[in-house]
Formats: sequence, C-alpha cells, structure tokens
Amino acid sequence: PVFAQSASNTSTSEILKSWNNTANKQAIIAYVSDVTNPKSSNFIPVADRIATFDNDGTLWSEQPAYFQFFFAIDRVKKMAKDHPEWKTEQPFKAVLENDMEALKASGMEGLIKLVMTTHAGMTSTDFEKMVKEWSKTAVHPTKKVPFTDMIFQPMLELLTYLRANEFKTYIVSGGGIEFMRAFLTDVYGIPTEQIIGSTVKTKFEIVDGVPVINRLAELDHNDDKGGKPESINKYIGKKPVFAAGNSDGDLAMLQYTDSNTYKSFQLYIHHTDAAREWAYDRTSSIGKFDKGLDEAIAKKWTVVSMKTDWSAIYPR
Amino acid sequence: PVFAQSASNTSTSEILKSWNNTANKQAIIAYVSDVTNPKSSNFIPVADRIATFDNDGTLWSEQPAYFQFFFAIDRVKKMAKDHPEWKTEQPFKAVLENDMEALKASGMEGLIKLVMTTHAGMTSTDFEKMVKEWSKTAVHPTKKVPFTDMIFQPMLELLTYLRANEFKTYIVSGGGIEFMRAFLTDVYGIPTEQIIGSTVKTKFEIVDGVPVINRLAELDHNDDKGGKPESINKYIGKKPVFAAGNSDGDLAMLQYTDSNTYKSFQLYIHHTDAAREWAYDRTSSIGKFDKGLDEAIAKKWTVVSMKTDWSAIYPR
Ligand SMILES: [Ca+2]
Ligand SMILES: [Ca+2]
Repeated sequence: PVFAQSASNTSTSEILKSWNNTANKQAIIAYVSDVTNPKSSNFIPVADRIATFDNDGTLWSEQPAYFQFFFAIDRVKKMAKDHPEWKTEQPFKAVLENDMEALKASGMEGLIKLVMTTHAGMTSTDFEKMVKEWSKTAVHPTKKVPFTDMIFQPMLELLTYLRANEFKTYIVSGGGIEFMRAFLTDVYGIPTEQIIGSTVKTKFEIVDGVPVINRLAELDHNDDKGGKPESINKYIGKKPVFAAGNSDGDLAMLQYTDSNTYKSFQLYIHHTDAAREWAYDRTSSIGKFDKGLDEAIAKKWTVVSMKTDWSAIYPR
Repeated sequence: PVFAQSASNTSTSEILKSWNNTANKQAIIAYVSDVTNPKSSNFIPVADRIATFDNDGTLWSEQPAYFQFFFAIDRVKKMAKDHPEWKTEQPFKAVLENDMEALKASGMEGLIKLVMTTHAGMTSTDFEKMVKEWSKTAVHPTKKVPFTDMIFQPMLELLTYLRANEFKTYIVSGGGIEFMRAFLTDVYGIPTEQIIGSTVKTKFEIVDGVPVINRLAELDHNDDKGGKPESINKYIGKKPVFAAGNSDGDLAMLQYTDSNTYKSFQLYIHHTDAAREWAYDRTSSIGKFDKGLDEAIAKKWTVVSMKTDWSAIYPR
C-alpha cells in the first residue's frame, strides 16, 4: 500500500528501478495502484491478490538450455563411476562425451530417461541435499557465473513491488517442483509452498523406522501449457489476477488469468536483447513465443521488451 | 506471541476456553510457548511453523457417515430426473430408495461410481457453485442442524491459538479438495490454498472462448494414510511441526511430523463422548482408530478425550 499510494503522487523512479520509464512500466504501476485502492471499483481484496510467474525465461535466463538440464548433466557425470554400462548406452554416452548432437538425437525418450535417472530413485530429502550441494558450485556453461546471478533484476523488483502491495507471489513453472524449491526459495524470497512445478509420483514409506518420501521414476504432472491452470486450480484454488510468462507454454495460464472477473494483468517477457541476454521468439526450440505473441498483440496484453523496457538485466 | 508470552505468566483460562484445564491443554500451551520463545533452544522460525489438521472427525463430526457423502446422496436425488435408468441401477437405486443396506452392499465399486457421478463431469466453477448452494440448506440427518454447526469449538480455538502464534494452519484430509474449499474456507478461516484433500484429475479447456477446468471421473490422489505426507511434501514442501488427526488414516501424517528435527507435536482426537457426540474407535468402520491409538500410547503422543478434555463440543 505504501508504494501504491505514493505512486500517484510522487515520481515512480523509486519503484521498479531497473525498468525504464516506458508505457509498460506505467501500465504495471497504474494497474497495481488501481486494484489496491479501496475507493476504486476495481479494488481486489488481499486474499484474492494472486500473482503467478513462470520461471525459466521469465524470472531467469534459459539459454542455451533450461538450467535444470545442466543439473541433470552434472548428476550423470557424478553417477557415472557406478554405471560403467553408460559408456555405451544413450543418452548417457552422449552426456559423458559432451556430444550434444547425439544427445539431441536421443529425442524426448532420451531426455525422459536422463531426467528420471537423475531426479528419481532417492528420497525427497536426499534430492534436496543434492540440488543445494550442486547450487554451491554450478556455473553457467558460457557466462561462467552462478546460475543465481542470471535472474532478472527487473523481475525481482516486480516481485518485491507486488508483495509490498500484498499480492501473494507464486512460481508456476514447467521446472521440477522440488528442484526449484531447493534452489530458488531464498533467491526469490518465495516460500516452498508458493513454488509450483512439474512433479514425479512419490511414495511415503518407513525405512528402518524413518518416514521418507521416495521420488519415483514416473511423471505425475507436466506443469506446462494447460497443466499450469490445472496446477493453479489444484494448489491455490483461486484464479490469479496477475500472470507473467515468456513462451507459448504460458499462454493457457495467461488466458485463464484473463478470464478473472477481477481486473487482471497479463505480462509477457519478450527476449529481444542479444547483446545483454539472448534474442529469440517464434522459431526458438527453447522458450518458443509464437502463438502467445500473436494473442498478446490481439488482446493488448503487456509485452515487455528486455532491450527497451529494462535498464538492467541481471543484478549488479 | 501475545498468547504465548502471557501463557507462562497469567492464567491459561483465556486460551482455549472450551478446553478443560487438563494435562492435554497444558501440554499444547507448553509446546506453543516453548517453540515460539526466541530464547528457547526449541525455537521454530515462523516460516517453519506448519500445522496440519485432518478434517472429518478432527475438526467436525463424521457420523453416521462422512458429511461429503450426504452431498453425494443429495446430488443423486437432484440428478435423478435426468436419469430414469437409475431406478434399476445400483448404487443409484439404493440411494433413491434410501436403502443404506443395499448401498453398503454395492461396496467400494458402488461408492466410487457414486462419487464420480456426483463430483465429476462439470467445471470446477460449477462444482463450487453446487457445493455452496447445497451448504445453504443441507442439514445433518439425525441432529437436524447445518453441518457447519457440527464443527468442534475447541478445535476452532486451537486453530485460532496457533495462528495467533504465527503457525500456518492447513487442512490435510481425505475429503475432496474442492468440496472442502467451497464449504469450509470461511468456517475455519483457512484460505483455499491451505486446504489439501483428495483430488480427481482435471483438464484445462477453452469452451466457446471461456477457459475452464473440467473435473474428470478419474481419481488423481487419495489423500489418506501415506497419501497425506505425500500431499504435504507436494503442496507445502515442508515437514509440519504440529499435526492433528483422529484415525488410522492420520497415522502416517503424525509419524512424518514426529520425524521433524524441530520439536513437534502430535495430537489425536479420541471420540469418547456418546452423550454429546459419538463414541467409537478400534472397530468403527468410519474413523477407525486402532493402530494409531496403539502408536500414540507407545510414543506418548497427546490423545484428547472429547469427554474429559472438552467442556463444549459444538459452538453455542
Ligand atoms: Ca518459460
Ligand atoms: Ca478423520
């Protein structure tokens, strides 16, 4: 409320500092000021101020591959000493030989095998430890910085701004739910119970007197496309009023949010900055932004250009 | 913190008013006072103060059948005019003829058919409306009062007491997640995103330009026994420090909570009051409390006797 009330009176330069003072920044502030104003006909009660954010490509970078993929790669290399058979077995052979072409050739089947081998067959507690351990030393393959240095500073400010106005901020992402929770809770200031993602099936068991949650090598839910509103309905039980994404995988979530009877806000991040980040959209294999871009234009949703709307990309 | 700090100095008569001043009440207050005291070695940070409550038999009554069952019965009767074939088809025939013996004889298969027919095949929004509509007029078959008059006043006070001490209170119940959210959010003061239950599979679709979540006639998750810690891990991502239940279906949740490295509290409600409520435990078909009772005794968990620990059962 502090921010919202001051927004109409004072300069907006203290809010969303890494955003240039463009129409898009003004639109965000105008929306938040309006729906948090008790005198506005568009006022939204605090309990219904649900804001959902995609993660890869929306809150941090996702090139040249989803960052969780590098975790899987590093896991395979670490596990290889106990799996001599991987020297001749795809997709592991490709990973061990850094042969990305062969890895791509192994297709979706290879990818699922890779993910299930590295993300299942352990307890939730042990998986959390692995991710936290990895996060301490892992660096991006080309930028050579920790992945957590590649979160988007303007989006961190947007999360903070929304929370200051009593929005409840959620991640709703295709990434693995327990991977994100272990890695990103502190980074984004979002508690585990507000991080939603793809899940494997799990099984409660008591092993030597100790209750554990075992992660099984079977997909439970793919939190992408229609899977996002399905997850939102299941985990939150309320339609968001604010949703942000960067690809066609977020279109259903934005459509769902757009159907809210409250005034809602749809935000798409457009990767337009080849110099400071990456530039890609309609034909990219990662973060394809084609149908979503068409619909955003048709429905006058907010499409943020990283190049022109953001004065900084990463935290300094 | 207000309550916790005053607890050690002043009389506890203002806290948990409908609880008699027994050892069980003292144990609850002693626990909360300890783990919320920053100077205690057992101090638990606010973010980790997760408390999970079973619903049926723990927060409200569950005899002579789970209250959601009466919703299903009433739905069948309402839908019957469009289903003339139900006059001869079980389990519907039994429901329409109020023949509980025949209904029981239809077994688990009949029950699932009944639940899926009445709880699936509509959108989430329409289902929510049905439950809310039903809740306005539905009354208990023998007590002849609204079901919401049959919540346990001492447990309402416990929820309030925990929230006053910055515990985040959740329902984790075998009941249907969307049924409970539509019915109980206001009653318990627990927002939809903190109500977890059994789920059917859902499917996002756009129908005539409107995004909807369709409820499918297929079980997604049975939130009972081991399913409870599985749900807690999935929805919350943290192990609770406080858990309450009333039957063997809650044992896994209490075991899971008991394995927390923080000091934790396990509470079982024992239905011992045939005069004011119902008395049942080891041999009951609903709310069977047998293995759980044995383990509670062995592990010195808190077993609340409704007859001796509670001065009132229902709100006045
Ligand atoms: Ca994305
Ligand atoms: Ca129960």
